Amino acid sequence: MQSNVSPEHIERVIAEITRMGCTPHLSAGRFKTIIGAVGEEANLDQSHLASLDGVENVVPVMKPYKLASRDFSPDDSIVSVGGGLTRKILIGGAHAAVISGPCAVENEEMLRRIAVLVKDAGATILRGGAFKPRTSPYSFQGHGEDALRWMRSCGDDLAMPICTEVMDTRQVELIERYTDMFQIGARNMQNFDLLREVGKTRKPVLLKRGLAATVKDWLLSAEYILSMGNRGVILCERGIKTFEDSIRYSLDITSISVAQHLSHLPIIVDPSHCAGVRQHVPSVALAGIAAGAHGVIIEVHYRPSEAQCDGPQAMLPESFAELILKLRQIGDVVGKSFGDTQQPASTAAGGKSGLWGATVE
Amino acid sequence: MQSNVSPEHIERVIAEITRMGCTPHLSAGRFKTIIGAVGEEANLDQSHLASLDGVENVVPVMKPYKLASRDFSPDDSIVSVGGGLTRKILIGGAHAAVISGPCAVENEEMLRRIAVLVKDAGATILRGGAFKPRTSPYSFQGHGEDALRWMRSCGDDLAMPICTEVMDTRQVELIERYTDMFQIGARNMQNFDLLREVGKTRKPVLLKRGLAATVKDWLLSAEYILSMGNRGVILCERGIKTFEDSIRYSLDITSISVAQHLSHLPIIVDPSHCAGVRQHVPSVALAGIAAGAHGVIIEVHYRPSEAQCDGPQAMLPESFAELILKLRQIGDVVGKSFGDTQQPASTAAGGKSGLWGATVE
Amino acid sequence: MQSNVSPEHIERVIAEITRMGCTPHLSAGRFKTIIGAVGEEANLDQSHLASLDGVENVVPVMKPYKLASRDFSPDDSIVSVGGGLTRKILIGGAHAAVISGPCAVENEEMLRRIAVLVKDAGATILRGGAFKPRTSPYSFQGHGEDALRWMRSCGDDLAMPICTEVMDTRQVELIERYTDMFQIGARNMQNFDLLREVGKTRKPVLLKRGLAATVKDWLLSAEYILSMGNRGVILCERGIKTFEDSIRYSLDITSISVAQHLSHLPIIVDPSHCAGVRQHVPSVALAGIAAGAHGVIIEVHYRPSEAQCDGPQAMLPESFAELILKLRQIGDVVGKSFGDTQQPASTAAGGKSGLWGATVE
Amino acid sequence: MQSNVSPEHIERVIAEITRMGCTPHLSAGRFKTIIGAVGEEANLDQSHLASLDGVENVVPVMKPYKLASRDFSPDDSIVSVGGGLTRKILIGGAHAAVISGPCAVENEEMLRRIAVLVKDAGATILRGGAFKPRTSPYSFQGHGEDALRWMRSCGDDLAMPICTEVMDTRQVELIERYTDMFQIGARNMQNFDLLREVGKTRKPVLLKRGLAATVKDWLLSAEYILSMGNRGVILCERGIKTFEDSIRYSLDITSISVAQHLSHLPIIVDPSHCAGVRQHVPSVALAGIAAGAHGVIIEVHYRPSEAQCDGPQAMLPESFAELILKLRQIGDVVGKSFGDTQQPASTAAGGKSGLWGATVE
Repeated sequence: MQSNVSPEHIERVIAEITRMGCTPHLSAGRFKTIIGAVGEEANLDQSHLASLDGVENVVPVMKPYKLASRDFSPDDSIVSVGGGLTRKILIGGAHAAVISGPCAVENEEMLRRIAVLVKDAGATILRGGAFKPRTSPYSFQGHGEDALRWMRSCGDDLAMPICTEVMDTRQVELIERYTDMFQIGARNMQNFDLLREVGKTRKPVLLKRGLAATVKDWLLSAEYILSMGNRGVILCERGIKTFEDSIRYSLDITSISVAQHLSHLPIIVDPSHCAGVRQHVPSVALAGIAAGAHGVIIEVHYRPSEAQCDGPQAMLPESFAELILKLRQIGDVVGKSFGDTQQPASTAAGGKSGLWGATVE
Repeated sequence: MQSNVSPEHIERVIAEITRMGCTPHLSAGRFKTIIGAVGEEANLDQSHLASLDGVENVVPVMKPYKLASRDFSPDDSIVSVGGGLTRKILIGGAHAAVISGPCAVENEEMLRRIAVLVKDAGATILRGGAFKPRTSPYSFQGHGEDALRWMRSCGDDLAMPICTEVMDTRQVELIERYTDMFQIGARNMQNFDLLREVGKTRKPVLLKRGLAATVKDWLLSAEYILSMGNRGVILCERGIKTFEDSIRYSLDITSISVAQHLSHLPIIVDPSHCAGVRQHVPSVALAGIAAGAHGVIIEVHYRPSEAQCDGPQAMLPESFAELILKLRQIGDVVGKSFGDTQQPASTAAGGKSGLWGATVE
Repeated sequence: MQSNVSPEHIERVIAEITRMGCTPHLSAGRFKTIIGAVGEEANLDQSHLASLDGVENVVPVMKPYKLASRDFSPDDSIVSVGGGLTRKILIGGAHAAVISGPCAVENEEMLRRIAVLVKDAGATILRGGAFKPRTSPYSFQGHGEDALRWMRSCGDDLAMPICTEVMDTRQVELIERYTDMFQIGARNMQNFDLLREVGKTRKPVLLKRGLAATVKDWLLSAEYILSMGNRGVILCERGIKTFEDSIRYSLDITSISVAQHLSHLPIIVDPSHCAGVRQHVPSVALAGIAAGAHGVIIEVHYRPSEAQCDGPQAMLPESFAELILKLRQIGDVVGKSFGDTQQPASTAAGGKSGLWGATVE
Repeated sequence: MQSNVSPEHIERVIAEITRMGCTPHLSAGRFKTIIGAVGEEANLDQSHLASLDGVENVVPVMKPYKLASRDFSPDDSIVSVGGGLTRKILIGGAHAAVISGPCAVENEEMLRRIAVLVKDAGATILRGGAFKPRTSPYSFQGHGEDALRWMRSCGDDLAMPICTEVMDTRQVELIERYTDMFQIGARNMQNFDLLREVGKTRKPVLLKRGLAATVKDWLLSAEYILSMGNRGVILCERGIKTFEDSIRYSLDITSISVAQHLSHLPIIVDPSHCAGVRQHVPSVALAGIAAGAHGVIIEVHYRPSEAQCDGPQAMLPESFAELILKLRQIGDVVGKSFGDTQQPASTAAGGKSGLWGATVE
């Protein structure tokens, strides 16, 4: 309460807390009066309390997310990606994954060529953009369903689960038919309708952190997906906006430890989009695994200067292969294994119809 | 180019610029070699150039937006909002507007009551939320089409154009049937599919600035709308994230002058969402008009402590009326008129079927 | 306390609060236990409490500054600058001032020429840099004591109080002999030794806000000065770092209202350093006064392209004079007077020896 | 140049560039005219050019720092800390160090106890605060020269070089007599007088990055020290301000790679001040070494709940010892050795008089 609060104002606040079904606790000090409210947070209208006369500040002491919280599930969640014709890749706990591929899927041939290269280097999940979010309306916007078809076919042939970005609620149904994992981009982290739509599916969701979002904002967005029944959420730290102008974004390495204290969800890092240029990718990737992340997502191209999108940040296949060796060595130091994959189920039992859905162990 | 660049690398860059249909200009100095490229920007693949060996940095000297640029249209754009059964309100140039109403439309009665109050105080456009973006999935999400119907009926009865937020591409068609102006929220400023969908309509769009977006990012988002043929874009500065923790967001007052140097589009300020609490709203609103903005959007409630959403930031009707008097006085000093409205066309000729579309004068 | 806290941990916290001479208040809820501590904040070691087992978070509810707080002095402070051979200029409450002059004092002739121009336009305090903080060691660093001497002589001749920046504890004594008001730059806002040294003098201090400081940080820095007995602190909002890259800094207009709610100290705005280029200066200056600031500090030069420092942001004398007319008109709307100055005391009674010290009314 | 630039304006710019002793290069395109200036940067007044009529933007393509730049010294600098009665510790290139100790030196006994613990765990340099920068004037400010004396005596007895913070130009001479390495805190990174004073000494300087500084700002501050002849600068990344509110600061892990591309100077990380609580320290420390840093600085206390300053962030001795084992293992993966120290020279030849000065190999 404010310093000069009157007894009437205090009584009003106490009455309102009681009316909301919570229990008020009064601490009247010499300088300040504090009123605690204990009960169901959902019942408690903080805006209302804040707007009452004499109230200086309302401080929530409960976290606003529930299903995403470490309190809700003390053990690390392990999300399984793929199945059917592909391996099942585990992400979370002691399991780490390398997700790799081109930025945009430009044509089927380049996709296959890159997919083979990254698989040989040690990547376990194939990424590639079919629909591209671009800040300029005049930039290349992606090949849409054609690219999805190429991704699916390539993933099945190599037994690699695939991951691709969804940008619009109207695309969810289409992309769900092809992909093993949705990716939600940083700029859509608070596109709440989109979060709800992927929450209705049962495919895992790689949820990138918004460029200026806090870890709490991010977990609230995860909560949107979880609250619709989809428990396969994987966080992806991809760098935040800072004042540093020598690099595109600054990867928030502290978010790895923070997110794991607040939440049970797996978390991976995206050094490519944060760095913007390939020379900084290895340093950031190694740091991510050392900090405790459950994997990396890295763009690779055999001829980056011809890439239609984000060429400067794509790693060359050889240096990517060297990096993975070091990532595995650091994984050994901090207790993360990159090798725990399961063989695909018999192709007979597979098919594209849904067996590679998300399961949380 | 890098300091130690070889002649082969320089030749390669010159060849690539030529291949793209542009003209290279070489400046070879003692310490640095700079290669200019003059021609159609759309032909020039900056990512490609940046990824060539020996290139240190690619600096664009043309603005990436065209239709939104002051170069494209040296005179201020004036956007007309409403028509049909409502007045037509002009925003831009010397014309300023006061947009006001409740945060969320809670029921028809409260809406009408607030609409009458804000109209009497001097507001010219009615705002109200039918679909609400909420960071938490457990918060009130709005009354949807019912709220739209109440808004339309209330606006028509008071001859006030209405404005409401659209959050999802699937809502565009529905909302277009009811509203006089779309609002795109800060969190959707880079929801590119949504920008394109409202760009296909002919209703004006109030485009809020993203919480961490630069003015250039914002103008690129405006460009998405403009490039689809909808020229009725009004920018809305609503505060950006900063380290200041005593207020919800910091209104970037410098963006008013910056946006007007870079672009011909009208710009208004939203002091309510930036302030978060009503005590800071008047100071920020007055500053916005003094800085040259074309209007304000302010939330008002006759009993804020009962509002379902953002009660603490809603102004009380009396202080709102006092504020408008001062806004008009400051408008007189800086050459902005709040009074230039046009009477609605004869009700006979009107109807809800589309006459209140966007026209840019 | 943490969710799974044990009774032993709770007892330990209660015991520690008691040991510190404060009174503990226990609120044990179904989900969370909260322990309030009421008493002298200075006795309460928050770090210690935060490090005890079972403690999740320590939330201070008292403000950490006292003398700078609105609670300490409910009325606006009014600071008097100058005296002796100059007028006494009041800043605070309903009194606003225009502080103007060149960025750096380059020589006596240019200083006099600019001083006469800004005085004729309506400025009441003369500013000029004798020691310049420069991010690069290779930039011009100022003329030191020569510049101080020129400033003092010019101020006395025009009866204008003068203001100049102090950067180092070793300069305080020297500058105190010449100036009527110290300026502390943004980069020194948390140079605590320097704050203490100017706090020991009795000349007013213009305290610029740090580039990434919160209003609370700023008031804590003011507290350093106030706690040494110098009550003449004037806050100066000069823009903060944001992601906006079309302007040097973003003036935080919301800080005007926020600072005046939290503190009784006067506050002025510096549109020149925030804008970096003169074209944005008028918009920001007008906004500052409309928002409730007690004045502006603006750089002026008759030939900016020849200035040794920050030429692009210096206004030309004619547009500066036009701006002041509008500032006065806006002052009339919001209740700020730019004209309340006192005539200098008889020159016989004056002299340079210290009569123009700071007094707070 | 601006789009509508006149030939006269272009000629004026060309004439001015020539007058400054540089060579102009004109690129006149269909849409834009670009004028390059090649020559000595020190001769070129960018502010002046920016303020000429018709100039849209001045883009520097040379780096503003020289001695700190990788161009100046392509090989990594290796700084030697200590000597005389202590070991000489190398930092830079393949040499990494662990700097540790209490936050503030509270008394001689606690200092010795912690020093022995951290040395046994593997730390090679002893840190401790004698003068403390505190945001509040009411907080504990350090024991001054007594603390320096205890540090020196303790370092000599354990053969560990010592490091302590300097906050004010007036303290430089005193601290130089005792310490083996100066520390410049984040809030003083742009206290240019202080940088110059430590630049005049020959003791190495640990230069912390400012809370909102870019890597370029930081290197410019290093340039201040280097330009006075002191080549022993070690950068220290200690976290920057971001919007994340679950941790005190966000360590900018990308700055490790960025700084090493731009500069030859060694760089270490400070996970304690960034994390603010000990639970996040190990994750951030491991990430720093994996990213390529040349060491860590970590606060340790045997009984953190009794520390006078920053107790919550101090690690316990046992977990600190475990962390060092992992840091060494990660060092092995990325090519950093923590073991390369040199035995102290014979005590006879030593003495406190200056033999432990900074040498750069």
